[in-house]
Amino acid sequence: MKKYYIGADIGGTTIKMAVITKDGTILDKWEIPTNHKDDGSYIPEDIHFSLKDKLIELGIHKEQILGIGAGAPGFVDADTGFVYQTVNIGWRNFDLGKILKEKTGFPVYVDNDANLAALGEKWKGSGENSNDLIAVTLGTGVGGGIIANGEVINGVNGTGGEIGHITVIPSGGAPCNCGKTGCLETIASATGIVRLAEEAITKNKETSLAEFSVKERTFTAKDVFDAARAGDKLAREVLDYVMDVLGMAIANLAIACNPSKIVIGGGVSKAGEDLLVPLRKAFDQYALPRTSEACEFVIAELGNDAGVLGGAFLVQQNLE
Amino acid sequence: MKKYYIGADIGGTTIKMAVITKDGTILDKWEIPTNHKDDGSYIPEDIHFSLKDKLIELGIHKEQILGIGAGAPGFVDADTGFVYQTVNIGWRNFDLGKILKEKTGFPVYVDNDANLAALGEKWKGSGENSNDLIAVTLGTGVGGGIIANGEVINGVNGTGGEIGHITVIPSGGAPCNCGKTGCLETIASATGIVRLAEEAITKNKETSLAEFSVKERTFTAKDVFDAARAGDKLAREVLDYVMDVLGMAIANLAIACNPSKIVIGGGVSKAGEDLLVPLRKAFDQYALPRTSEACEFVIAELGNDAGVLGGAFLVQQNLE
Repeated sequence: MKKYYIGADIGGTTIKMAVITKDGTILDKWEIPTNHKDDGSYIPEDIHFSLKDKLIELGIHKEQILGIGAGAPGFVDADTGFVYQTVNIGWRNFDLGKILKEKTGFPVYVDNDANLAALGEKWKGSGENSNDLIAVTLGTGVGGGIIANGEVINGVNGTGGEIGHITVIPSGGAPCNCGKTGCLETIASATGIVRLAEEAITKNKETSLAEFSVKERTFTAKDVFDAARAGDKLAREVLDYVMDVLGMAIANLAIACNPSKIVIGGGVSKAGEDLLVPLRKAFDQYALPRTSEACEFVIAELGNDAGVLGGAFLVQQNLE
Repeated sequence: MKKYYIGADIGGTTIKMAVITKDGTILDKWEIPTNHKDDGSYIPEDIHFSLKDKLIELGIHKEQILGIGAGAPGFVDADTGFVYQTVNIGWRNFDLGKILKEKTGFPVYVDNDANLAALGEKWKGSGENSNDLIAVTLGTGVGGGIIANGEVINGVNGTGGEIGHITVIPSGGAPCNCGKTGCLETIASATGIVRLAEEAITKNKETSLAEFSVKERTFTAKDVFDAARAGDKLAREVLDYVMDVLGMAIANLAIACNPSKIVIGGGVSKAGEDLLVPLRKAFDQYALPRTSEACEFVIAELGNDAGVLGGAFLVQQNLE
């Protein structure tokens, strides 16, 4: 009898779900909208019914399911599946693990969504089964997940791997959504890159980005990368600064965790080598030579599937 | 039949050894000088004979020994006990685990000495069995050990936990022994504190430390703490700066690892509350509030016994 894992990546807009084989092949994947009614309290039921329908459709029996690995966007107690608080969903002290287990009858394991994405990249993405890996997601914000000795570092109350909130500007930094100032997220996110470019434009009008800004009213982090590639000096300076700050932050983490892989994901990672080359250069300047030589930079491969695959792997880790 | 662990903490001057009960009581401890002959190649033999004599003296049979946990001052492959390179001992690519096992006939587990000290504090010291702990040793240099999910982070080629080499001054920092500049060790070690105080004196003669320096020709980190306690403004400023830099470095690590304990050891930690109070204040400024509320700062308790107790615990972890 063939056995399967279920991955459920719970986000503010949709819940991504998948039936995954023991070797990490996605048999089927689908999405349901995130139900915000009554502070998200119907979400476990929604997952249960959607999964029940899917298993009937696929002709899979309950006994074939090994467990559900679920990712939640917030602080989670990974030992119990208890969700302390979330972003974009109303959960606060919500016992997701217990409730989802009661509804579905399956074993349920929960972790933070970014941590699960890191596990997914480790298992089936560019992490190539590295037991020591740092995943950094450069999107609207900066997220992350750290794997050491093969396990995600979730920490004592669920803030482990919150790489975006590492302080990189000790004083006078830009305000961050977390309430602090000078967090990595204020510099190395897509939002941060655009903010820095806008600030630079006000000081120096000689840049193709300034015209872009006037014509289109706005520009994106991708536009900054495009301008730098086309030879725009100001865009290049902004990105050099961002890569220097990000490279040092990652180097300091790498000195502490000594990973074999640094996996860069999120929208900004689409810049590929334009990002990796200067980032690696900055990293090498701040890392111990021995840390640096053991460590490879790669772009994340799994995109939106990272979370559900990480969920499946979390089930596998717990059942081993 | 009562069973015992053996701890061996191999340093540049002495090898500290101990016979330790399963519950972590030191039955007997002793030291032998570190034999530097032929690049340290006689050390495993020295440990073997010294241990053999001790077991006879104590009336303990070979069958009662569960294994040896050894700490080496350098980069170690904790999976195999292979020592890549060391400071103060001539070992380079030295297969300590295998050789010591062959000589003694006991199972042997090896890790970096600072990592073992962290494990010791976790097991029997102020770590109080925390599974998520950062140990920082402020001595001549700055050392450290990180425990996540109950296990030491040794990393992929043994540089895990090298907290002293986190970059805290991105450019123009003082040179570090590791070849980089601006490492935490250049600021927060006893040496770093004295250097910063000396630099400050050349700019501002109005300090009790200046007289100290002229009279005694030299002063220590303890003298800087003493002067600050006695109301010396310059000494206070130097220490405030050191605690700010150290607090931010530890906060950034804590955001990544989310520990319940930060254990501060080493000679500088003898300053006790004079160190912990300003350090905690700086830490709280840079850490996520949630990270901060989960985390307690404590002074290390085990002193020179931390390494051998950590060795014993390493054996226990491997045999579980």
